[in-house]
Amino acid sequence: MISEKMMGFVKNSSAIRAMFEEGKKMAAEFGAENVYDFSLGNPNVPAPKEVNEAICQVIEEEDSVFVHGYMSNSGYEDVRKAIADHINELHGTEFKEENICMTVGAAGGLNSILKALLNPGDEVLTFAPYFGEYRSYVGNYDGILKVVSPNLPDFQPNLKEFEEMIGPKTKAVIINTPNNPTGVVYTKETLERIGQILEKRQTEYHTSIYLISDEPYRELVYDGVEVPYVTKFYKNTIVGYSFSKSLSLPGERIGYLVLPSEMDDAEDVISAVNVATRILGYVNAPSLMQRVIKKCLDCKADVSYYDRNRKKIYQSLKEYGFDCVLPEGAFYLFIKSPVAEEGEFCKKAKEKHILIVPGSSFACPGYVRLAYCVSYETICNSLPAFKELAEEFGLCK
Amino acid sequence: MISEKMMGFVKNSSAIRAMFEEGKKMAAEFGAENVYDFSLGNPNVPAPKEVNEAICQVIEEEDSVFVHGYMSNSGYEDVRKAIADHINELHGTEFKEENICMTVGAAGGLNSILKALLNPGDEVLTFAPYFGEYRSYVGNYDGILKVVSPNLPDFQPNLKEFEEMIGPKTKAVIINTPNNPTGVVYTKETLERIGQILEKRQTEYHTSIYLISDEPYRELVYDGVEVPYVTKFYKNTIVGYSFSKSLSLPGERIGYLVLPSEMDDAEDVISAVNVATRILGYVNAPSLMQRVIKKCLDCKADVSYYDRNRKKIYQSLKEYGFDCVLPEGAFYLFIKSPVAEEGEFCKKAKEKHILIVPGSSFACPGYVRLAYCVSYETICNSLPAFKELAEEFGLCK
Repeated sequence: MISEKMMGFVKNSSAIRAMFEEGKKMAAEFGAENVYDFSLGNPNVPAPKEVNEAICQVIEEEDSVFVHGYMSNSGYEDVRKAIADHINELHGTEFKEENICMTVGAAGGLNSILKALLNPGDEVLTFAPYFGEYRSYVGNYDGILKVVSPNLPDFQPNLKEFEEMIGPKTKAVIINTPNNPTGVVYTKETLERIGQILEKRQTEYHTSIYLISDEPYRELVYDGVEVPYVTKFYKNTIVGYSFSKSLSLPGERIGYLVLPSEMDDAEDVISAVNVATRILGYVNAPSLMQRVIKKCLDCKADVSYYDRNRKKIYQSLKEYGFDCVLPEGAFYLFIKSPVAEEGEFCKKAKEKHILIVPGSSFACPGYVRLAYCVSYETICNSLPAFKELAEEFGLCK
Repeated sequence: MISEKMMGFVKNSSAIRAMFEEGKKMAAEFGAENVYDFSLGNPNVPAPKEVNEAICQVIEEEDSVFVHGYMSNSGYEDVRKAIADHINELHGTEFKEENICMTVGAAGGLNSILKALLNPGDEVLTFAPYFGEYRSYVGNYDGILKVVSPNLPDFQPNLKEFEEMIGPKTKAVIINTPNNPTGVVYTKETLERIGQILEKRQTEYHTSIYLISDEPYRELVYDGVEVPYVTKFYKNTIVGYSFSKSLSLPGERIGYLVLPSEMDDAEDVISAVNVATRILGYVNAPSLMQRVIKKCLDCKADVSYYDRNRKKIYQSLKEYGFDCVLPEGAFYLFIKSPVAEEGEFCKKAKEKHILIVPGSSFACPGYVRLAYCVSYETICNSLPAFKELAEEFGLCK
């Protein structure tokens, strides 16, 4: 009796989330310390202490009716202004409060912008491997997600195929850098090239193509890698941001969209996003958290914690004979499955209480994703199990 | 370049919200004390002090990674169990944690359940006057909202017309009691009758029709009026609840759905709602607020505050010659416009700095809605302006 569309979804319910539930069950059965759950991007680093301090401060200092009340659908004006100023200071941009719309996490922001833009049948391009939810988000508005093949082995975007796939029905492109699941960060040159390709195709087809940059991992980079600000390379760029990872607040559902004034039909797009925020039932981003993040724009979660995990798991797996690229950002390691059918590998891993996600969930079979946003102890404790796995698959050198 | 659907929405953007923005502008121009903004259901009563205490308590006592982290899409298990127990205690029901799904306010809950249920072309019935957003929510999933005419002058539901309008494509019915915009509360007899009609029609058409009871105002009733629990009268009932009004937390976006095990295809509906919560981009209801409301289930906002406003504005407007029904619940007064074209009346009211919403926004032209969830001072200060209005329209007795 549920809708036909949902029947499919319920059947193929996200492998990641299903594994999260599975992980909880296994932890209850075998003890949390004996389960190595690398399945979900649920940060193990606590929010910076400034966040909890700011929560109590806001509660104490600001008027309760204001703090917990409705505001404009796009969010508190002073919060949006503070965010615009913050981005401008960091990246030399010139955004104003009207260019910022507060959203229920990055997922809420992506849904609002896709609802605003897509007519049924419009095409949205993205690059494999990609966060599997993009397919659902685009499908929510009857758009068609088209996927550019993965570019092995370094997972930089395949720009030749990308250019060929852009057609007259291409309405948007989603990029995600630093990338989930590969940890790859797009260089300035790559972003310049993407901008040039889009400009060229727009002119050919007399269309507007919006580049949606999904950036929940912007703050999580290692070895001093630069994450260029995408609006600088192409005027029809919309940025989706979230504080889920940068401030370790994934459950709080707080993020924003950047909607530059220089993009095509900017005024209509901004209005449509505000209406979409309302009618999709978000209404507004959670109010207390808006007030809190205003006080914490200069804070970030302890990236060195993830870096330590990254080095440990990468070095160990390489030593055991696994094939993977050193991630430059985010907190995922994308590992080549030692057998073509990566589901088989995940199954064997699970027998050793290691939970990892098959690459098929990211349109990249033959690989698996490991989320290393766990405790360092979990990383260390899991290593013997990984070593055994490597031995079983004949990887050990 | 925005989607065609959204073009219409942007043009006809919610009259209520537009007025909210207008109200802010007028307050800046004329001073907040000289503008009588009755346009939006934004509670002026602060959250009970227990809420802010609970926020600081949760921050202090619970693990930060847990409090701000992801959990199952349906919410923290202990929070859902506490809510189920609370409902059971109050209403003698037998819900378990699996029957509760935490949502981003009632609006998020309604969208999740409609996404779960509706195929394109499915019909959803509701009773005029109704909260205008229902049309958008149903439209989001290509459903068709069909509206039962208002039943003047007491605004109890027109059950004869309702029965006639149920057809083989009717998938759901939305009721809202205590009602926005009329303040009417459905009696036990009315709910029994609605249940009987739905049972009869389901049998005739061999369908399942879900009764969605949107209940953000459940706690806000006056003169000891009873609000019967709707699941008792019809097994295919789904309840949408929000803490926006009961705890004065509208900006926090926290509510829940009750999905009873005895409804048709309960297991599929529950799974589909969880998936819908995820793919619509809510992901989960805000985490800290989930933990907070668990501690505040026995609290409620000061209803006597609204009651005092209710009596004052009702008695005064009646005295000036306006025609309206004494609201039994919620915090709205639905007033008969002294001229057929109620937009004209709203315009004249605005000239006197009174902001009220035309009944057309609720599919009930000829009436206007006044939200009395403002300060008592605002009520009192506005009375001379109402009196002048009454005189201008020749109402004074």
